[in-house]
Amino acid sequence: MNMLPISKRSNQIQPFHVMRLLARARELESQGRDIVHMEVGEPDFKTPQPIIDAGLSAISTGNVHYTAATGLFGLKQKISEHYQQTYNVPVNPNQIVITPGASGALLLSLACLVEPAKNILLADPGYPCNRNFSYFLNGEVKAIAVDASTDYQLTAELIDAHWDENTVAVILASPSNPTGTLIESTQLHSMVEVVAQHNGVIIMDEIYHGLVYQQQAHSILEYTDRAFVINSFSKYYGMTGWRVGWCVVPVQYIRAVDNFAQNIFLAAPTTAQHAALAAFSDETKSILEQRRTSFEERRNYLVPEIKAMGFKVSSEPQGAFYIYADCSEITHDSEKFTEQLLEQAGVAITPGIDFGAYRAKQHVRFAYTTSLERLVEGVKRIKDYISAT
Amino acid sequence: MNMLPISKRSNQIQPFHVMRLLARARELESQGRDIVHMEVGEPDFKTPQPIIDAGLSAISTGNVHYTAATGLFGLKQKISEHYQQTYNVPVNPNQIVITPGASGALLLSLACLVEPAKNILLADPGYPCNRNFSYFLNGEVKAIAVDASTDYQLTAELIDAHWDENTVAVILASPSNPTGTLIESTQLHSMVEVVAQHNGVIIMDEIYHGLVYQQQAHSILEYTDRAFVINSFSKYYGMTGWRVGWCVVPVQYIRAVDNFAQNIFLAAPTTAQHAALAAFSDETKSILEQRRTSFEERRNYLVPEIKAMGFKVSSEPQGAFYIYADCSEITHDSEKFTEQLLEQAGVAITPGIDFGAYRAKQHVRFAYTTSLERLVEGVKRIKDYISAT
Repeated sequence: MNMLPISKRSNQIQPFHVMRLLARARELESQGRDIVHMEVGEPDFKTPQPIIDAGLSAISTGNVHYTAATGLFGLKQKISEHYQQTYNVPVNPNQIVITPGASGALLLSLACLVEPAKNILLADPGYPCNRNFSYFLNGEVKAIAVDASTDYQLTAELIDAHWDENTVAVILASPSNPTGTLIESTQLHSMVEVVAQHNGVIIMDEIYHGLVYQQQAHSILEYTDRAFVINSFSKYYGMTGWRVGWCVVPVQYIRAVDNFAQNIFLAAPTTAQHAALAAFSDETKSILEQRRTSFEERRNYLVPEIKAMGFKVSSEPQGAFYIYADCSEITHDSEKFTEQLLEQAGVAITPGIDFGAYRAKQHVRFAYTTSLERLVEGVKRIKDYISAT
Repeated sequence: MNMLPISKRSNQIQPFHVMRLLARARELESQGRDIVHMEVGEPDFKTPQPIIDAGLSAISTGNVHYTAATGLFGLKQKISEHYQQTYNVPVNPNQIVITPGASGALLLSLACLVEPAKNILLADPGYPCNRNFSYFLNGEVKAIAVDASTDYQLTAELIDAHWDENTVAVILASPSNPTGTLIESTQLHSMVEVVAQHNGVIIMDEIYHGLVYQQQAHSILEYTDRAFVINSFSKYYGMTGWRVGWCVVPVQYIRAVDNFAQNIFLAAPTTAQHAALAAFSDETKSILEQRRTSFEERRNYLVPEIKAMGFKVSSEPQGAFYIYADCSEITHDSEKFTEQLLEQAGVAITPGIDFGAYRAKQHVRFAYTTSLERLVEGVKRIKDYISAT
């Protein structure tokens, strides 16, 4: 049985370290230990009631047949209106493809571009799955180290310096996971120009739009139509387990994306699509804005507390629900540190290694996806743990 | 904008002809025409009430967070019991991965095996997406022509004759789409032996299990553990739009499949997984068995009627809800025939071209996924159309 064939990607794609940490946390909890979860990239809030009601209503008819491969047209229309209202950008509903979460949107977009010998540019640190989508499609990855000097974001200069004849696209994320930082308007504009000069494409991760504090995030579509936009109902709209997201597709790729969706997914889940129709209502919006305020309060509490303990947070996180902190004054091995913090203090945070290689051992990610009370408890435990070691 | 990069698979993967037909049918319907749908690969029945109730109950808590990447352990346990009860085969729940439909299961399985220069064997005619999954993963396909002499199935001899040093797997389907034929027990056994001699793997599509008439389908797991089994709650269990299926994974590939699932899907939809927990109850089973009887009645009506009109059905369909018919005595261009049948007679059936290249112009597929009354109406219209031309 040792001779069975196995593809290269099977060994290239590695598990996330946080999964092992999470499994250990669950094990400790089953033994009666209390664990403060500051590692989870999923909001603690339930799905807003109007969305639940729309889902219940769709499901109770019992008629949950396939939708068209690219999704319900009514949902595409609502998303199109959302771009008009939020960013003042017209988007043809036929350029919008409803996907099984942002994961589905990333797979479809990159499938249009990535193939053997081709590479994509992305920031290190960044969302860990991005590089794995490229490996999955037999492509390559050029991870570009970024630090606080550019708010942990790529720049037009970095893109220009790393682009080569095999580069097809660059993945950007604003707000970014794990750093919560945004890309500024002028910088976005310069990036669009440099990518156009190289005849490439931008894949723009906007899944944390809506979860931005004290400013407004810009959509890449304000600057170009030469970009795939990745978005999702998971984070801001609180629909993680429903598995529904979307992609705005440049016209040249619509046919390919439709063909991929027909073959690879058939369609996104029908109930989730009907439920998402309620995501843009005024009632839902007011619930979501309250939650945004809660996230902002948590951030405003957590950032100074983390700094006071000796972590460095050089770029203030402006969105999402993450803080990426330099822990080099506390430990030189963030993976070992996060393991010990879990075992000895009962607090789960994510080691930097899950987001890339660049100074990963000197960084950890805190997620404020739990209540302020639990964050206070977590901070107390970390403080005690650090002062005792 | 013409210089934008585009991957090879973007042009390799073509749309299904039936999609254009379906779009035209919808257009005619919106103009007030009545269309008999005998093209749709989706049961007309609603999801069984116990499954709906379980879905409603899960959703109404509002807590629809992500499950583990490979799915709810309780659902894996129920599927494991199903293998024990139905096939008398023990399957470790940890070898079962819950996926977004059978599509997700096919993608994960083939991702373990297929890569550039590698190929898979499959039957022509066969499920059209199979070849496209291989192209999606930058692999190649060796489509093997099959006809009524082997019940439109591959055989051990055919597999042996076509296997080359770059072949990693063969895809089998029993019952098959589009032919509804099964692979017999002795043949399955021989296939297992020949694939083992070549150190290859079987990908076994069992998604129409349960929809078998007058006999019992065998699972490949009765003969080997060196196979990925693809299954789904869509067809027999009536859960198409929910997007939940499963894969039984050989132990050697569990780690890779888990890593792929984490990155590519995150997880199958949470509500659908909770709903599927009710799929194995006695109450559900009795509903599903009634439906199976309805499908059998439809088949028993439709096969002789089709033959009486001049179509040849050389291999009696024993399962699924499809009849693959040779139309060469009626037309020499099945694609044109299906278009005209829709326009002039208001009946939609699928041209052979969607299932491969071998004698595709001489074949059409009838799906009995509509009521007996509508099938009677469809048959009347086809008869009138043929006698008038």
